[in-house]
Amino acid sequence: MSHQPAFHLQGTDNTAAFDPHFTQNVIKAIGPKASPRMREVMSSLIQHVHDFARENKLTVEEWMAGVDLLNWAGKMSDDKRNEGQLVCDVLGLESLVDEITFKLAGEAHDTATASAILGPFFRHDAPELPNESNIVHGVDDGEMTYMYGHVRDAKTGKPVVNATVDVWEASTNGLYEQQDDNQVDCNLRGKFRTDENGRYAYYCLRPTPYPVPNDGPAGKILELLDRHPMRPAHIHLIAIKEGYKPVTTQIFDSKSPYLEDDSVFAVKSSLLVDFVPLEGNAQAKLQLEYDITLIPNESGV
Amino acid sequence: MSHQPAFHLQGTDNTAAFDPHFTQNVIKAIGPKASPRMREVMSSLIQHVHDFARENKLTVEEWMAGVDLLNWAGKMSDDKRNEGQLVCDVLGLESLVDEITFKLAGEAHDTATASAILGPFFRHDAPELPNESNIVHGVDDGEMTYMYGHVRDAKTGKPVVNATVDVWEASTNGLYEQQDDNQVDCNLRGKFRTDENGRYAYYCLRPTPYPVPNDGPAGKILELLDRHPMRPAHIHLIAIKEGYKPVTTQIFDSKSPYLEDDSVFAVKSSLLVDFVPLEGNAQAKLQLEYDITLIPNESGV
Repeated sequence: MSHQPAFHLQGTDNTAAFDPHFTQNVIKAIGPKASPRMREVMSSLIQHVHDFARENKLTVEEWMAGVDLLNWAGKMSDDKRNEGQLVCDVLGLESLVDEITFKLAGEAHDTATASAILGPFFRHDAPELPNESNIVHGVDDGEMTYMYGHVRDAKTGKPVVNATVDVWEASTNGLYEQQDDNQVDCNLRGKFRTDENGRYAYYCLRPTPYPVPNDGPAGKILELLDRHPMRPAHIHLIAIKEGYKPVTTQIFDSKSPYLEDDSVFAVKSSLLVDFVPLEGNAQAKLQLEYDITLIPNESGV
Repeated sequence: MSHQPAFHLQGTDNTAAFDPHFTQNVIKAIGPKASPRMREVMSSLIQHVHDFARENKLTVEEWMAGVDLLNWAGKMSDDKRNEGQLVCDVLGLESLVDEITFKLAGEAHDTATASAILGPFFRHDAPELPNESNIVHGVDDGEMTYMYGHVRDAKTGKPVVNATVDVWEASTNGLYEQQDDNQVDCNLRGKFRTDENGRYAYYCLRPTPYPVPNDGPAGKILELLDRHPMRPAHIHLIAIKEGYKPVTTQIFDSKSPYLEDDSVFAVKSSLLVDFVPLEGNAQAKLQLEYDITLIPNESGV
């Protein structure tokens, strides 16, 4: 994709040299039975993709390099890795659609926990564990943390009982368990349920920065853009309770490097948290209190 | 991707509701060692993709449907099928970058043979055959055609000797040989060399309309857009000779249906040809004379 065109078309508006009806003809080919939303989204996609090609005078060679890269992403993807998603992530797209979706759903007011991207390492089948469990197995170079908090109703402030808090984090070597044959299945992952006081609690690692996988097309893009693959230290979580809008988010260690240049652009100031010393606990030297606020489904309409 | 957002943001410019610095921050992350062309193309891609997401208020669900579709395309692709390319083709992108590349290369003057898209069915390893060969094997319901012509120098009009004319076409069942286990390897495909008069000649089928493969994501897009998958009848060809710019094109039967609504938008009026009756030839009832004009490399600078 580094091909520099040898020639430039005359005039200041180079794009005027191309068939002025082409894009409209492609859009007009959409049939009457396409859904209104499909017509809206795909018309816009065609217009933007064509404008992108014309404005940059994209060559067949460059376009084909892009096709090869996307096909490569598809081939690399499986139930443990979504490389197409990661390609979007390093271009900021997942973070942007997350913001859009969050605002569309009417959740963007002060009382709700801010959302952040799901990322490519979520697993639907994480084990359900009792509160006070330790999700850390076989890691001896990490800082053990006691993380706890309450899930509350955004409207009433009352505790939400029996909510699911699904958490996952990378190990100190920068790998999630599905990337690492040396970790036990579902290491550093677990689903907890809030008790009668709306409280959850478990032991985890203080997270550490890590690179997104850069052995595929997302890594190739980062290399070509002279960018690093690092993400700031974070814990992923999803909180779900019937009758409430689910929240997908990440919380970031406020002392981590890469907060300003996250390779997937997911950091928001409202998601920074402080890990503080914990005394008198044999299992952990640090603690993190983190409350989650859920919006009832009936509000925000 | 048929999800209709339930809520709309206030104001006429919905996109103003989102972080106004987000896209610039993603673009600014490009490092100093990225090549100028990479910076130009990727900055524009990021801007267009983000604008597309904001303008359509793209949801996480819709975006993820797109990621799934692209991953699916990658998984389907192999050395016999390029589904990522076909996805681009049904959105008109290959035809557009072909036009752009052709014009950039300075080939867009009257004397040169017009280009058209390569398409996903080209094979690098087609057999080289002597002139007057028949590329049709095991097809008994087609109209045999004697195709011939001269390759000429666009500047001098003189014949180009020893040029390669690489041709391929679908069978009467609408399938290229690599899609069809019932066809012999490299059926309806061949490379010919022009003789001392710059002439090539071979026997082929009068092409017939066929659908692009619609068992994958490109077919899914066509279905969602309420479009048919048909292509007008055509023969692909590439003409190559050292010292000249290569030409990749398709020629279309001027009597074919779907000339006005080619599913991959490749038809140009300059590429329409007439199949006419041929008498006194036991091998073919039709003939097609088609001359190809190549531009010397040194011109057009």
